[in-house]
Amino acid sequence: MKKSLHEIATILGGEVVGDASIEISNVNGIREAQEGDITFLANSLYKPLINTTKASAIITSKEILSAHKPIIRVENPSLALTRVISIFSVKPESVIPVGVHASAVIGKNVKTGENVAISAFVVIEDSCDIGDGSIIYPHVYIGNNTKIGSQAKIYPNVTIRENATIGCNVIIHANTVIGSDGFGYVQINGSHQKIPQTGVVVIEDDVEIGSNVSIDRARFGRTLIGKGTKIDNLVQIAHNVSVGSHSIIVSQAGISGSSALGKNVIIAGQVGIVGHIEIGDNAIVGAQSGITKSLPKGAIVLGSPASPISEQKRIFAALRRLPEMLKVVKALKDKVLK
Amino acid sequence: MKKSLHEIATILGGEVVGDASIEISNVNGIREAQEGDITFLANSLYKPLINTTKASAIITSKEILSAHKPIIRVENPSLALTRVISIFSVKPESVIPVGVHASAVIGKNVKTGENVAISAFVVIEDSCDIGDGSIIYPHVYIGNNTKIGSQAKIYPNVTIRENATIGCNVIIHANTVIGSDGFGYVQINGSHQKIPQTGVVVIEDDVEIGSNVSIDRARFGRTLIGKGTKIDNLVQIAHNVSVGSHSIIVSQAGISGSSALGKNVIIAGQVGIVGHIEIGDNAIVGAQSGITKSLPKGAIVLGSPASPISEQKRIFAALRRLPEMLKVVKALKDKVLK
Amino acid sequence: MKKSLHEIATILGGEVVGDASIEISNVNGIREAQEGDITFLANSLYKPLINTTKASAIITSKEILSAHKPIIRVENPSLALTRVISIFSVKPESVIPVGVHASAVIGKNVKTGENVAISAFVVIEDSCDIGDGSIIYPHVYIGNNTKIGSQAKIYPNVTIRENATIGCNVIIHANTVIGSDGFGYVQINGSHQKIPQTGVVVIEDDVEIGSNVSIDRARFGRTLIGKGTKIDNLVQIAHNVSVGSHSIIVSQAGISGSSALGKNVIIAGQVGIVGHIEIGDNAIVGAQSGITKSLPKGAIVLGSPASPISEQKRIFAALRRLPEMLKVVKALKDKVLK
Repeated sequence: MKKSLHEIATILGGEVVGDASIEISNVNGIREAQEGDITFLANSLYKPLINTTKASAIITSKEILSAHKPIIRVENPSLALTRVISIFSVKPESVIPVGVHASAVIGKNVKTGENVAISAFVVIEDSCDIGDGSIIYPHVYIGNNTKIGSQAKIYPNVTIRENATIGCNVIIHANTVIGSDGFGYVQINGSHQKIPQTGVVVIEDDVEIGSNVSIDRARFGRTLIGKGTKIDNLVQIAHNVSVGSHSIIVSQAGISGSSALGKNVIIAGQVGIVGHIEIGDNAIVGAQSGITKSLPKGAIVLGSPASPISEQKRIFAALRRLPEMLKVVKALKDKVLK
Repeated sequence: MKKSLHEIATILGGEVVGDASIEISNVNGIREAQEGDITFLANSLYKPLINTTKASAIITSKEILSAHKPIIRVENPSLALTRVISIFSVKPESVIPVGVHASAVIGKNVKTGENVAISAFVVIEDSCDIGDGSIIYPHVYIGNNTKIGSQAKIYPNVTIRENATIGCNVIIHANTVIGSDGFGYVQINGSHQKIPQTGVVVIEDDVEIGSNVSIDRARFGRTLIGKGTKIDNLVQIAHNVSVGSHSIIVSQAGISGSSALGKNVIIAGQVGIVGHIEIGDNAIVGAQSGITKSLPKGAIVLGSPASPISEQKRIFAALRRLPEMLKVVKALKDKVLK
Repeated sequence: MKKSLHEIATILGGEVVGDASIEISNVNGIREAQEGDITFLANSLYKPLINTTKASAIITSKEILSAHKPIIRVENPSLALTRVISIFSVKPESVIPVGVHASAVIGKNVKTGENVAISAFVVIEDSCDIGDGSIIYPHVYIGNNTKIGSQAKIYPNVTIRENATIGCNVIIHANTVIGSDGFGYVQINGSHQKIPQTGVVVIEDDVEIGSNVSIDRARFGRTLIGKGTKIDNLVQIAHNVSVGSHSIIVSQAGISGSSALGKNVIIAGQVGIVGHIEIGDNAIVGAQSGITKSLPKGAIVLGSPASPISEQKRIFAALRRLPEMLKVVKALKDKVLK
């Protein structure tokens, strides 16, 4: 499918600078783009590439006035991008037909809404609800008394244990586990006796959860993922953790038991957070940080153990000069203290 | 279900201080508890909450003499808690009926004990044994010649490869992989040739393994998880690793090939351990540590690279003062050495 | 099965020093070996064990001239080992019979080559190709329009989403996910709107991927794993990442979106790499490092943030002396600056 730059600009509500009649047949990254592609400049890192990209046109912010190639100037290039992707996306996802596949094993008292699609080899235990328009891919297991809202998508090989509540528009990617037992033991005479994990997991509306994620059920009460929060692949969420709304948790981060994260928090990749602490709203934790104490609202921290980011950057810079400093201190000591 | 505080204290063998006639209908955490709940104080972090919790009663250690609310004083509040949870747990796990589901695919010469439950879409290859009372949830795959003891629980979507030995009372949570090939190659003319991984995995009695864990089979010989050891979610255990009995390995830790951990070892979250080393009995490794050398019995270490914990804490404290120290050293150098 | 040392040496093209007539019945590690076993010395760490191992014979490099036990001297002990393992391997893998299991659900226009084995409960969506001799284990899901080359092995509970291309001789271990959505959002009025992830994953020939790995599909274009690259368990490969040929990525490492790794790169365990950077050919990144900037060809780095390895080792050494240095600096300051 081809569209003229003019047509694309109209869809995006943007302004063309350059030849609006050229035809675009695909969208691609600024480095990968070829002739006939439209690309975009959303990350200022890539600004130098604006004049070397092979793309035929570029979507830019209003800051860019013109370029060697035709541009479409828009308020929000990232948002414009999501629309352009939809225009040119030609490789469809697998379509799971509405209805219950003959091989699926459905328990007693299971309620399914309108236009639900339940695939091959799905197992749904007793007393579950699946809301309107939700899609359950093959090999998904859903334990008894779990409720899933409308328009949810549960990808293959996901395990959702009993008594969970999953909201509307929730996406859970392949091979993720919701509601496995929390990690809790009491030591008795040198062996570890299991503490029963009888609580639940609650995932609110509009949450997206990546692949191979583990979210444990609460010991009692609930483990909570707030509305609109997005969780990347291979993340660990321990029992009784609570994550506020619209937060971001990047790949391979781990949050220990009973910690509470606020709203709009950003936890970068491979971060570790100890148990029983609080992370305030809008806090940002840099990649690979280790958080051992509660953080106030709006804190921006980095490092293991973490410090405020500007302080940590000074520490990192000083570290590079540490071996040299050691020599200077030795010379000073020899001269002054001996 | 409701029970009086007196009834609960009798079950726990504890002593009530306050009104023993009040009725309790649930158990909950000290922060989450509401009127009618009983809570507990096991972590001294939460001591200030004893007078602000909304719970109607609190289980405490003998150290606490009284509180604003009725308390039950016991020897071990954590242990008492596990009993109280069992009293009030009302949301049952999915019940997998005894017997073999009609859809399961069972190989030749498979032996199953008394009261075994094998669910929908389970695949068990030839020559396996499943012990008395074990429960195999849906979508589990068990390779040929694998032996599972009695009273084991294998949750959905677990993969157990061939020739593994799984003990009695073992719990393996959803989507975990036991016995995938170890990561071993020989470089020949610039490409990596696979070293056959023909060994096995042995998991002894009373081990619990979290969700999304990877435990690789040995190159030859065996990868061993000792009796009573507990492994959290998303942990990596490489080929030929040996873990002693009653150890704890917390989420997202990784243990490289051929390393040997002793008994009662504690490996905290996100720790990395290189290959071919030994960690002595009772050693404790703090979160996010990197271990590159063997550790003696009883070592307590922290950091990457790790040092004894008291030393590492001094290093962490000194690090915060490093940028300031750099300035002082420069001033000294200017004055003394120039 | 038994073989004389002479017979083994002939297969390996090595030279026996000592009694070539002794009979060997198994292969084992130098620490674990018993009488009747042959072992090997590939890692110089284990040199002291050459005289204490209980093995009846040892495969060594040409550097070793003789030992207390008979030895076979070879050019490459690791390579010799892979051959010896094949000789003595007696515990076979599960055999998946050629053909399509009656329970498998196969879509429209699916092409399967000669001698393909498709197991129980496999789901293959429309328009897929499975090449000659490939083995698909139970509970695997393959989305529409995915192509798999010849002689591939896809272990149980793997999820491969739509439009992926998997090469010949590729091995994907259990519970791994290929082609889940990349983690990309645009923030609009405080909530995160999903950016469609319409690209693909391309896995070239001879790649091996461990268990519980997540490799995300590209936003557009492709996520690429180059020929002969080996990926360990629990690794995260984000959208639009490109990994060159014959690289090694060790367990629990994570590579963020759009980063490009060269050929023959080695990424050790638990490394984190930020997005949008380049790692040159032959670069080596030490365990637990954090990489925030592009690395040139042949770079060898360590630490978080990473420095060249010799520099980082000096920093690590200096760190251990930091608390003491702090005291000296204080003493100097008191004497000189006050």
